[in-house]
Amino acid sequence: MSEQMGITVKKNENFSEWYDEVCQKAELSDLRYNVKGFIVFRPWATRIMNLMYEFLEKELQRKGHEPALFPALIPESNFHLESKHVEGFTPEVFWVTERGKGEKLEEKLALRPTSETAMYKMYSLWIRSWRDLPLKIYQRCQVWRCEGKATRPFIRSREFHWIESHNVFSTKEEAMSQVKEDMEITENTLHKEFGIPFIFFQRPEHDKFPGAIHTYAADSLLPDGKIIQQPSTHLLGQNFSKPFNIKFVDKDGKEKYGWQTCYGPAVSRMMASVISIHGDDKGLILPPRIAPIQVIIIPIFADNKKYVLKKCDDIKNELKAYIRVEIDQREEYTPGWKFNYWELKGVPLRMEIGPNDIKNKQVILARRDTQEKTKVREINVAETAKVVLDEIQKNLVEKADKFFQKHLSESKSIEELKKIIKEKGGFAKVNWCESVGCAEAIKTETNGGDIRGIRFDKQEKPIGKCVYCGKDAKSVVYVGKSY
Amino acid sequence: MSEQMGITVKKNENFSEWYDEVCQKAELSDLRYNVKGFIVFRPWATRIMNLMYEFLEKELQRKGHEPALFPALIPESNFHLESKHVEGFTPEVFWVTERGKGEKLEEKLALRPTSETAMYKMYSLWIRSWRDLPLKIYQRCQVWRCEGKATRPFIRSREFHWIESHNVFSTKEEAMSQVKEDMEITENTLHKEFGIPFIFFQRPEHDKFPGAIHTYAADSLLPDGKIIQQPSTHLLGQNFSKPFNIKFVDKDGKEKYGWQTCYGPAVSRMMASVISIHGDDKGLILPPRIAPIQVIIIPIFADNKKYVLKKCDDIKNELKAYIRVEIDQREEYTPGWKFNYWELKGVPLRMEIGPNDIKNKQVILARRDTQEKTKVREINVAETAKVVLDEIQKNLVEKADKFFQKHLSESKSIEELKKIIKEKGGFAKVNWCESVGCAEAIKTETNGGDIRGIRFDKQEKPIGKCVYCGKDAKSVVYVGKSY
Repeated sequence: MSEQMGITVKKNENFSEWYDEVCQKAELSDLRYNVKGFIVFRPWATRIMNLMYEFLEKELQRKGHEPALFPALIPESNFHLESKHVEGFTPEVFWVTERGKGEKLEEKLALRPTSETAMYKMYSLWIRSWRDLPLKIYQRCQVWRCEGKATRPFIRSREFHWIESHNVFSTKEEAMSQVKEDMEITENTLHKEFGIPFIFFQRPEHDKFPGAIHTYAADSLLPDGKIIQQPSTHLLGQNFSKPFNIKFVDKDGKEKYGWQTCYGPAVSRMMASVISIHGDDKGLILPPRIAPIQVIIIPIFADNKKYVLKKCDDIKNELKAYIRVEIDQREEYTPGWKFNYWELKGVPLRMEIGPNDIKNKQVILARRDTQEKTKVREINVAETAKVVLDEIQKNLVEKADKFFQKHLSESKSIEELKKIIKEKGGFAKVNWCESVGCAEAIKTETNGGDIRGIRFDKQEKPIGKCVYCGKDAKSVVYVGKSY
Repeated sequence: MSEQMGITVKKNENFSEWYDEVCQKAELSDLRYNVKGFIVFRPWATRIMNLMYEFLEKELQRKGHEPALFPALIPESNFHLESKHVEGFTPEVFWVTERGKGEKLEEKLALRPTSETAMYKMYSLWIRSWRDLPLKIYQRCQVWRCEGKATRPFIRSREFHWIESHNVFSTKEEAMSQVKEDMEITENTLHKEFGIPFIFFQRPEHDKFPGAIHTYAADSLLPDGKIIQQPSTHLLGQNFSKPFNIKFVDKDGKEKYGWQTCYGPAVSRMMASVISIHGDDKGLILPPRIAPIQVIIIPIFADNKKYVLKKCDDIKNELKAYIRVEIDQREEYTPGWKFNYWELKGVPLRMEIGPNDIKNKQVILARRDTQEKTKVREINVAETAKVVLDEIQKNLVEKADKFFQKHLSESKSIEELKKIIKEKGGFAKVNWCESVGCAEAIKTETNGGDIRGIRFDKQEKPIGKCVYCGKDAKSVVYVGKSY
């Protein structure tokens, strides 16, 4: 059993196989559900994702966003109100066409691939005056997209779990502030709490969200150097408020169309980054903030089981006010088996307590991230556990940041760019003339490198020529291969 | 605005209209979404429901149930594995038959009306040995049922929000213990925290969940004396484990089929009871435990706005460690308007703070349930608010219990039964011979009174004759009209 349980592939030798093995053996997901493209999110993953949801929702609510729940089914006619949106999403829609014993519906209903066309119909009924603005509403839900690409647990499946936040303002400036607030929310959760670094890029025109004026997307990296897109926030402007008739009477008595934004943190996809970035050859490593169990206590039974369990219980009770702590009391497994089991599951801190430790008034602490083992005086155990958990959190974020920074490069020529994309991966900064032709040529030359866009966090002025055509560059962009 | 805002119908004159008005004016739901039978759950309702979810999930987790997330789409073939289940649910299923631009799917997919046939396919893969049992997994999700009955917000819509808990055990006894645990969970949440009393009935054979051995359902009452079914828990026995092949090797080395139960607390429907039972002619009244805002502070601005707001802030900061508290700082509305607004929303406790109060080192507390106003010394405000909130919670539960007890009657003859059902409503205890014919006759005679079943919480032996046919009674059951 113990042998079967362990991860057999090295992360730095074959990331892809390592990833699949961790998802399966740490019991995060199951691909065997009998609908193509759909996966089951197993309890351990669901508990981690629930903690991620909690951070995101708290942060949204702190910033004045309110939760609501909109129907999962959207009439086909709603879709057709915004032409780019329908064009972009229709190919991926699952359609409900029948009910009961084969009775046809009057109108086809889309399983929501995203909720603009469900929510904005209601917004037009709710918004009347400037007093109703800003309207900042989000929903926690799942969405369905019948994509053709291969299913990978958490990275891509036809059903995923996210939050979508949809906001209406009276001016473009306020809408733009919301875009920045969305980036702050992403920093405060995905980076600070979940330990995943990213850069927000303004996507080039040819790669925008269908219906948006501008799309700003957080790109992160997986260990193989490939980019994974994390939350994006979109300045929709008045592109939806006009066809959906979202109007308000402003303070000056004039009727105006609202300015809109939307933001979509996909929790199931954030989970993919958490698994990939922090994990090692023994399995998952969870940042303490999102670990369903932060400290696992393993009793080392010898002759006196009751005596050991009593001490474990006392310590658990001492910790539990501020730490998520459990005791693994199972009798059918050895301590060694349990060490492996909880390492695989990524619990950040293990506490071993045996009769000798009790005699010496100490416990043994084992860090999941550094594998360090230390003896701690029993009297200090709660305080020490708290400090060590904070250190683990910090260490995981720093390690992830270092990896990310190492994969930011710069290319002056197409040859250099090809080499970086092929050998190192990550992001390569280049000058670009902004022609779609050059973007396509770069993609071909680099065997799949996309232009991810302009950095949002700093202004970078193009000095020089386009890396492909040699004409004057119009922007500084980043190229990389993505999932 | 203020006039429009208030409830215009008296609850005891026309409950049904009162209910619809509260749902609309307290901004709980919106019926104008353009798919028949679907409603929008607006922010205030969603926040209340999220608190209800929190109580239910905590209670489930405390009792060893783990969360997971299963796909919303179920292949038609899964459905056909259990014959009663397919027969019971097929008439209500929404079917996904196409994707993209009209491409037919190979197999029709059901939007889950309930998840037995999705989850048990996976359970058969996960369960191998007695070590894997008990398996206690729940999911928080929504389900879709294309029912014909009229849509009523929270009471009945084609999409509703619930938790479904699905469990597997090695023996029938353990499964039966789970049924009792489910009843305990219901008591600890729906009754104690949300203030809704109920009785668990074992449903008669002709009214079971499709595929169950026994169905136990919690029946509650609405103010019009009609019954509303709240959570039910089902002893599935081996009816699903056999067709779904959920087998385990027991300690004795023999292969056996698992014993199953499932439990489905519908949070959106619990919300219907909360609105109906506690509300009054001014709108909603929320039990403090599930109030998104427990204390609303209304600053009474006079000349010195800054001074008043500063004091409100200080008090908010003092309360917020253990009370959900907000200040209504809006300048475009008067204090009187705000009083009405928050009464409509059901916030249990209002705190008024004006310059005179500050001078007298006091605040004014107004209870939503009794309308009592008291002056409280500023120095005691946090402690007092806590105590009063507990009193409100207790008072609401007691009032609900009293109403419920008053609607438990007993009938010795069909004439008496008809009178009770017609004039008083609620539950009428009768003797029954257990024939379906008599059940149908009782329903006709009473113009819709159903046999709800045998009480689970106490054994009541039938002494006497069937209330309809006069033959020897086999059981003591309760009759009532339901939603």
